[in-house]
Amino acid sequence: MSRPPRARDLGFACGTLPAGALNSIADVPGVLVGHRTLVDGDVRTGVTAIVPHGGNLYRQKPVAAVHVLNGFGKSAGLVQVEELGTIETPILLTNTLSVGTCCTALVRHAIARNPDIGRETATVNPVVFECNDGYLNDIQALAITESDARAALESASSQCAVGSVGAGCGMSTFGFKGGIGTSSRRLDLDGSSFHLGVLVLSNFGRSGDLRLPDGRIVSPSSAPDGKQTEKGSIIIVAATDIPLSDRQLKRVIRRSGVGLARLGSFWGHGSGDIALGFTNANILSHDEKAALIGLRILNEDRIDLLFEAMADATQEAVLDALVAASSMTGRSGHHRPGLFETLKSLSPEA
Amino acid sequence: MSRPPRARDLGFACGTLPAGALNSIADVPGVLVGHRTLVDGDVRTGVTAIVPHGGNLYRQKPVAAVHVLNGFGKSAGLVQVEELGTIETPILLTNTLSVGTCCTALVRHAIARNPDIGRETATVNPVVFECNDGYLNDIQALAITESDARAALESASSQCAVGSVGAGCGMSTFGFKGGIGTSSRRLDLDGSSFHLGVLVLSNFGRSGDLRLPDGRIVSPSSAPDGKQTEKGSIIIVAATDIPLSDRQLKRVIRRSGVGLARLGSFWGHGSGDIALGFTNANILSHDEKAALIGLRILNEDRIDLLFEAMADATQEAVLDALVAASSMTGRSGHHRPGLFETLKSLSPEA
Amino acid sequence: MSRPPRARDLGFACGTLPAGALNSIADVPGVLVGHRTLVDGDVRTGVTAIVPHGGNLYRQKPVAAVHVLNGFGKSAGLVQVEELGTIETPILLTNTLSVGTCCTALVRHAIARNPDIGRETATVNPVVFECNDGYLNDIQALAITESDARAALESASSQCAVGSVGAGCGMSTFGFKGGIGTSSRRLDLDGSSFHLGVLVLSNFGRSGDLRLPDGRIVSPSSAPDGKQTEKGSIIIVAATDIPLSDRQLKRVIRRSGVGLARLGSFWGHGSGDIALGFTNANILSHDEKAALIGLRILNEDRIDLLFEAMADATQEAVLDALVAASSMTGRSGHHRPGLFETLKSLSPEA
Amino acid sequence: MSRPPRARDLGFACGTLPAGALNSIADVPGVLVGHRTLVDGDVRTGVTAIVPHGGNLYRQKPVAAVHVLNGFGKSAGLVQVEELGTIETPILLTNTLSVGTCCTALVRHAIARNPDIGRETATVNPVVFECNDGYLNDIQALAITESDARAALESASSQCAVGSVGAGCGMSTFGFKGGIGTSSRRLDLDGSSFHLGVLVLSNFGRSGDLRLPDGRIVSPSSAPDGKQTEKGSIIIVAATDIPLSDRQLKRVIRRSGVGLARLGSFWGHGSGDIALGFTNANILSHDEKAALIGLRILNEDRIDLLFEAMADATQEAVLDALVAASSMTGRSGHHRPGLFETLKSLSPEA
Repeated sequence: MSRPPRARDLGFACGTLPAGALNSIADVPGVLVGHRTLVDGDVRTGVTAIVPHGGNLYRQKPVAAVHVLNGFGKSAGLVQVEELGTIETPILLTNTLSVGTCCTALVRHAIARNPDIGRETATVNPVVFECNDGYLNDIQALAITESDARAALESASSQCAVGSVGAGCGMSTFGFKGGIGTSSRRLDLDGSSFHLGVLVLSNFGRSGDLRLPDGRIVSPSSAPDGKQTEKGSIIIVAATDIPLSDRQLKRVIRRSGVGLARLGSFWGHGSGDIALGFTNANILSHDEKAALIGLRILNEDRIDLLFEAMADATQEAVLDALVAASSMTGRSGHHRPGLFETLKSLSPEA
Repeated sequence: MSRPPRARDLGFACGTLPAGALNSIADVPGVLVGHRTLVDGDVRTGVTAIVPHGGNLYRQKPVAAVHVLNGFGKSAGLVQVEELGTIETPILLTNTLSVGTCCTALVRHAIARNPDIGRETATVNPVVFECNDGYLNDIQALAITESDARAALESASSQCAVGSVGAGCGMSTFGFKGGIGTSSRRLDLDGSSFHLGVLVLSNFGRSGDLRLPDGRIVSPSSAPDGKQTEKGSIIIVAATDIPLSDRQLKRVIRRSGVGLARLGSFWGHGSGDIALGFTNANILSHDEKAALIGLRILNEDRIDLLFEAMADATQEAVLDALVAASSMTGRSGHHRPGLFETLKSLSPEA
Repeated sequence: MSRPPRARDLGFACGTLPAGALNSIADVPGVLVGHRTLVDGDVRTGVTAIVPHGGNLYRQKPVAAVHVLNGFGKSAGLVQVEELGTIETPILLTNTLSVGTCCTALVRHAIARNPDIGRETATVNPVVFECNDGYLNDIQALAITESDARAALESASSQCAVGSVGAGCGMSTFGFKGGIGTSSRRLDLDGSSFHLGVLVLSNFGRSGDLRLPDGRIVSPSSAPDGKQTEKGSIIIVAATDIPLSDRQLKRVIRRSGVGLARLGSFWGHGSGDIALGFTNANILSHDEKAALIGLRILNEDRIDLLFEAMADATQEAVLDALVAASSMTGRSGHHRPGLFETLKSLSPEA
Repeated sequence: MSRPPRARDLGFACGTLPAGALNSIADVPGVLVGHRTLVDGDVRTGVTAIVPHGGNLYRQKPVAAVHVLNGFGKSAGLVQVEELGTIETPILLTNTLSVGTCCTALVRHAIARNPDIGRETATVNPVVFECNDGYLNDIQALAITESDARAALESASSQCAVGSVGAGCGMSTFGFKGGIGTSSRRLDLDGSSFHLGVLVLSNFGRSGDLRLPDGRIVSPSSAPDGKQTEKGSIIIVAATDIPLSDRQLKRVIRRSGVGLARLGSFWGHGSGDIALGFTNANILSHDEKAALIGLRILNEDRIDLLFEAMADATQEAVLDALVAASSMTGRSGHHRPGLFETLKSLSPEA
């Protein structure tokens, strides 16, 4: 099977910084992505797993931060990330009503690898994000099982599939078919190369508001829902191997909002727009014995480079989702056209 | 069966404001509380449901606020409460690893009453809070089922049982048996009577730190765990029929920290100390058609009265849990003495 | 003297919502703006006053909110606005090192009108915002006096001058001359017309990043400072006569970040990007006697309209500042070209 | 002149951790404190300076954090501390209406040592905190001058005077004379000794609410103002030589609220209760050239030790202010009795 097109295949590179080799969140060493996709009857949904590194995440916790752009959302696990500045499980993305099931799956996943959880040591904080795929998916079916979440985790690899896969299966963006997209930037600091990678679960934006990097405004030929209130969401996950503090990470991921604004969004009321970032360059050990720990952070004077990378990679990751996701008909015959097909029909010779 | 003793039976009234008739969160008109308690083998856990009013909560959303005193916790639903200032489901309390299951139960509960969820209208934000009962309970058993959550919801009444019931079944506090406690204050404003009620799920505090209102420091005769890092938590739910804005509610519930400090706590690192407040005096309709809505708020100059009530009722609700919960032996023979028995043994003639 | 050109004179209307009659923050009934401009030797600076309404602001406090987009800034008064959701003085804008002097001026201004301040009643919270005009202005001169602040307050009128006036005198934007700009949108709700008005003190953005609404990227012919770290800032003040709660206002003004992103900014590290909003439709009396107060808020389902207006008006207000401010040479011969002259030189016949 | 009594002279040691040699914020190596006290006619006010270290603070910025317990306050400089996690000037404390003057004084102080400010480099963020001393002081006189602020800075030494000195001159606490108090704790980590020191400007609490560590409730013999709404404030400054991140510092200083609650406060509405913390163990260079910087943080599992120290030292620092400040008659004959004299009169033989 041929791979779906990506944003750069259509010339949608954003900004001037170089992309990583894969132009993917998996350009960050250690990061793996897996998907479990469910298409059956009126069901169009799934789970996507982002695994920060190959070790035991509960034992080796990456420094992390969250930022809520607009909080009309039901994601889980943010309180502890905010307090402690770390994550301790893989990150799962799914549909809104399946957050509970994915939480439980992450709990069991952590206990299986760490039998001392809730006995000799603390409990575990599952991190699960969601968007509402109810337009194309029968979300009331609560079709996701713990086994689906496990399947996403087990399939994680450095090949990050994009488009209508995993949690992206039933998502919509600016009236088009949305889904999973990714992008990365290579950044040079003190003579070494680092990466900032972004993966989005894209399900936001009103029909008619999408602005391409070349300035074109594109809308689906038929916009069945008019300029409605947004009922979508977007989840932005950023990974890096640059050493950052949790405060610095929070400042960086806040710039995801710039990328969304460039695409034509004003961060609508009904949208749960949430960003999470982590760095594999600062890992805190669950079993640390020393009272004082050394780590590295970024000279804050250089952080504009990361701000720019975050804005660019977020913008491009959404375009990546839009380009990769082809047209889909789902629940009750609801339909979302693919952006790629739409653009081809507008300029057939291209 | 005789009802368990309450804090006031031991003279532990806190502050000088009068309590409500039930000295319970159910003194706030409309508020109901239900419990489902599981005791079986090494299992000592449960679910507690707080139902803000008897109507359809998804249709009639109480104004609400959350405040995180210390965020080492895994509660769900806070992001949306923070953004929109409302709740739209009952509030469930349970053990840490059962949050996911309770979220799913609330989702199904809401869909059953509102078949348009995720189809013609938005999704739903389940609000679930937790403490870690792993000392007395086999928390890895994940014993709570959706059916248990339903049972707690269905049993909700204005009789609020306290002690080792519901989510409080396996909890510990300052080395003693903890659990569910409640207290209320009657407040007079502009010639009318209102109530502020508090319910706690109490599972925090180091052995040896408990300070009674009369100044006595009390510790369990044997403190098997020494002055360990807290691995507990406390959830504080406040209800009122005073008209408040979400900002005002947030200010009020922040004072729960005062009550905890008076008890001897310094809000330990490992504790998820989280407060939620709601008011039945400001209800926002999901189906509101008007663009502008009238509501009432408190003259901020009077808010000290509520601050005092919140501090006092939180302090007393924790004492209520301690007094009502009798000694328990649980998982692996772990034991927590009851405060009431301990105090009786100290002054046998009393 | 002919008035300077405005953004719309060059066709830079942003978005599709109609502007108010003045296309100014003064379209909001009651709002007045005054400027005091200092040009002398190496001094290029000033003070701008925004007066929410014509009454005694300390006695009649508008509901208000602040939002920090990027906090590399020295503005004063935000803590209390955040806690209480009101303002109680006019708003002053000035250069970074003159915040203290403007605070003192506002304190004296409030005492003169309210002799009970600090005696029979509370103190007063001056609200002062700033940007760093040090490129064109000898900011070390601390040239602003309390008398200058008073002059800005006393000159306040419904005619809002724009460009290199008041606090905008020495400001820079995307390598061009910046300053004061304004814009408004007319919004219809329940059959009545309301306004949302924005005034910016614009001093942000790197040379080469400015994107016009038509997609053109424009940079000064000579960019003496290259693509430096931003050392500027932008202050965004929003006024409205729509009844909003402080939480709703905060959500609205957060969308100023969308307007900035559309202009090419990624909210640089060195920039203090801060928004304040207030509504004259909800005024709280300092001397309120009733315990409960009625007010109106917006049906949250309509808030997208305000989000869009806020994004559009912020974007246009910055363009307004850029278009109105003509070239200036200041401290040590530092020069900023005007955008209007630059665009004319690019298309001389236009 | 004999030194005033301190809290420990009356046996008011709080908690079980050992105090530092001076039992003062100056136990933290490098920290200096200076006062300028104004008593003249109806004027009872002053300025207190806390100098984190003896170097150039603008060039060598300590990691820092702020926490707002209750935001009815007018302090300046918090926005940038929150964003960047550092301070870059000494900390000044003064009366509410003199914040502006102290800001300007700090600006000039920084420019004098760093002539590149606002020219070749960024501007400077003055950090000024305040309480309302209007009961004893003619606060409308705006008696503080820049020269007074300079005098406080120039007099800074490791001998931290307490009581009615500096900014504490005209302050009140629980109906008694308040002012400046300090306390410290010695903490052992990995075999080395460190200190956490606290200095308070204490001006909060209702008459009749003060609770001494031995449980006694003490009130002034005549409470002229009854149980009024608090119109005071408390500023808590914490210093340490333990390496902490800004997030960890924020968690630590939040526990100042525990100390206040133990004293009988419920963090009243009208009080600006604000904490700032800094660590001299993590200093960021303004002129850093490297892109990545090494620093040390605390193993979070040990942070309970600091939480306890912060709660204890805050409680004791307030008692220290109360004990050291003797009775004062000020503006319009207003009087505040000293706690020490009051306690002596209660037990004359002691």
